[in-house]
Amino acid sequence: MSKLVGNAIFGQSGGPTSVINASAAGVITEALKTDCIPRVFGAANGIRGILEEKFYDMSKEDPRELELLKTTPSSALGSVRYKLADPDEDDTDYKRILEVFKKYDIRYFFYNGGNDSMDTCNKVSKFMQKVGYDCRVMGVPKTIDNDLDKTDHCPGYASAAKYVATATMEVYHDAMVYDTPMVCVLEVMGRNAGWLTAATALAAYKGTGPHLIYLPELAFDMDKFIADCKKAYKENNGKLIVAVSEGVKDKDGKYISEYGSDLAKTKDSFGHAQLGGTAQVLANVLKDELNCKTRAIEFSLLQRCAAHCASKTDVEEAFTAGQKAVQFAVEGTTDHMVAYERSEKDGKYFCNYILVNLADVANTEKEVPREWINAEGTGLNQHFIDYALPLIEGESSPPIEEGLPRFAKLKKVLATE
Amino acid sequence: MSKLVGNAIFGQSGGPTSVINASAAGVITEALKTDCIPRVFGAANGIRGILEEKFYDMSKEDPRELELLKTTPSSALGSVRYKLADPDEDDTDYKRILEVFKKYDIRYFFYNGGNDSMDTCNKVSKFMQKVGYDCRVMGVPKTIDNDLDKTDHCPGYASAAKYVATATMEVYHDAMVYDTPMVCVLEVMGRNAGWLTAATALAAYKGTGPHLIYLPELAFDMDKFIADCKKAYKENNGKLIVAVSEGVKDKDGKYISEYGSDLAKTKDSFGHAQLGGTAQVLANVLKDELNCKTRAIEFSLLQRCAAHCASKTDVEEAFTAGQKAVQFAVEGTTDHMVAYERSEKDGKYFCNYILVNLADVANTEKEVPREWINAEGTGLNQHFIDYALPLIEGESSPPIEEGLPRFAKLKKVLATE
Repeated sequence: MSKLVGNAIFGQSGGPTSVINASAAGVITEALKTDCIPRVFGAANGIRGILEEKFYDMSKEDPRELELLKTTPSSALGSVRYKLADPDEDDTDYKRILEVFKKYDIRYFFYNGGNDSMDTCNKVSKFMQKVGYDCRVMGVPKTIDNDLDKTDHCPGYASAAKYVATATMEVYHDAMVYDTPMVCVLEVMGRNAGWLTAATALAAYKGTGPHLIYLPELAFDMDKFIADCKKAYKENNGKLIVAVSEGVKDKDGKYISEYGSDLAKTKDSFGHAQLGGTAQVLANVLKDELNCKTRAIEFSLLQRCAAHCASKTDVEEAFTAGQKAVQFAVEGTTDHMVAYERSEKDGKYFCNYILVNLADVANTEKEVPREWINAEGTGLNQHFIDYALPLIEGESSPPIEEGLPRFAKLKKVLATE
Repeated sequence: MSKLVGNAIFGQSGGPTSVINASAAGVITEALKTDCIPRVFGAANGIRGILEEKFYDMSKEDPRELELLKTTPSSALGSVRYKLADPDEDDTDYKRILEVFKKYDIRYFFYNGGNDSMDTCNKVSKFMQKVGYDCRVMGVPKTIDNDLDKTDHCPGYASAAKYVATATMEVYHDAMVYDTPMVCVLEVMGRNAGWLTAATALAAYKGTGPHLIYLPELAFDMDKFIADCKKAYKENNGKLIVAVSEGVKDKDGKYISEYGSDLAKTKDSFGHAQLGGTAQVLANVLKDELNCKTRAIEFSLLQRCAAHCASKTDVEEAFTAGQKAVQFAVEGTTDHMVAYERSEKDGKYFCNYILVNLADVANTEKEVPREWINAEGTGLNQHFIDYALPLIEGESSPPIEEGLPRFAKLKKVLATE
């Protein structure tokens, strides 16, 4: 395929991770050194920045700061939760994007996000094809939820998993310290897929983890939960650590957080219920049932932004995924997402970068296989441990100044025509 | 003073920290190599282990595991919250301790804890003096609250402060990411002293911290809080991060967590109210007042056990404090706590190890000086930054195996007579 000459734009979307900026660094540094891409733009707040013609000229950034993006959590360009309409119903946004792309001669569009973002990517790509505007559209995956289909795992997951496992080990040490009963309920992010909650099983594998783990893949039964807890509490002499996904729900689809929680149940713009309070609801239940001190711990935002405890494997893969997106696009690929394929080299874990159709990943949700969960539905087996261990290998942390992380500081110079 | 020959016992008490085991390593390794101390015992769950004659023979531990204690959070021997009675009213426990000390020829008693533990230490010491039993009693400080008097700072504080500051920086990045309003209330431990909440000011100093910080040292006024927040929210274009101590209370002494919280308000065995929910109460208030998405984040146990993000300065000082306690005791000191004195060497921060009377620290609470808090009562000034920065210098983390911390595993061989 002939070389397409034109400018590139990159955007970040959805919930932040510890490594979404590593992918940004991969895309931006690779695009900046690519001959057929004269200018590289960074969209402020993802697709919204494109719609509002607000984007930054990435060539104006200090290369050292771009390097620091690798170890800076969250989305340096700003993120967004904005769902594009079905173009057959309302193509206003698409026409606007086309207008902006034409105005700035944008021929490469890189979008970094989860399944909702791959849907955005897919819709934009299909529209550009339909109107005959030559633009290569590439998705770069990211999600701590690890629920994108067609990829072995997702950038951002391993770092969140490493943090969750590490913190669980530490909390275990802390919670076990008194000679009195202690029940601790840990709440981990994950609406429909329990990959991140499953990471607490890595702490259990190290002998310091939860006694019971509940994923949203299986219907949550309160009576069984209470029975499970009473049994484990007794077996462990009054010590009990339970990990639950924020998204556990009963067989009727009712979230456990709705059981007794008085927390707001507003919906975000994608229509997902705002979850939270699952651990507190369960801790209250156990307090009554076991008549002992209970504590609910939500890992909250900490689990998705703990760049100080990131997986080096994850950071490097996320960076490479960004680079590969540019390389594949320049070579002629469009309408695809860069994905990870698990492989082996010299008997060790090795990651291949492959391409999958955007249409195949948009709005998908990959769950933890039932065979990886124990028969009782209260823990993970060796399949999961073998899957997760290579991903959390290696320690990445930001450079330190005065005892604290030095995160990237971008100038964010607004691009002009 | 003549050399006192006899066995030593060490105990850990009160809430865990990331470095209480570093002090344990200091005491134990130093005592094990001290000629006049034939045997070294570790009390299971502090003073309770002594009362119940349940302690471990530390010579049976693998020296490599004792070394790993330096980077293992919480209390490896188990902790306790047990308040000894006033010996004039009930000397049962003291007589029992004397009996056990005599039986095992214990002549050195090292106790690692906060102000309640120093009170325990002081009472035991005074009792032994009264009955004429020659036993050297030494306190080793520890508390993330940093509220012990007569010492510049406390082992455990700096590591908790480093974690709180790091996590606050990360949460700031995460919370700022969307182009929609976002209010985040961070809750930090600290009943009456705001030292740890003040550590969020280190993130503010780095440009990524809370806009407002509330310490328990000043009476909390809800109307002023709401006005402060509205102003800062407006000034920061709908972004607001607030840090509060769990222990903030109004001018009548009522905890803010009691305002709207339905959480249990049980008392622990020292009579302290069980706090929690302060951030949630305030987030709910702000949700109503600002009519925007709010999030409450409790650092919970994570802040006191995050050994993966400990201060190297803290770990080394905590270890040395343990060593010094043994050395001072062997040299003839009793009835004292090892304390830190801030000094300078070659223009840099330097820590001297000094001795303070147990009676002077027992049950004291040192608060953050009013002059270190800004006039509005919503932040810390440079005095605090200068105080805290040297303490969080250097990174300590446990050795890693398979991507996760390798914490110490003690054999805990029960000691016999």
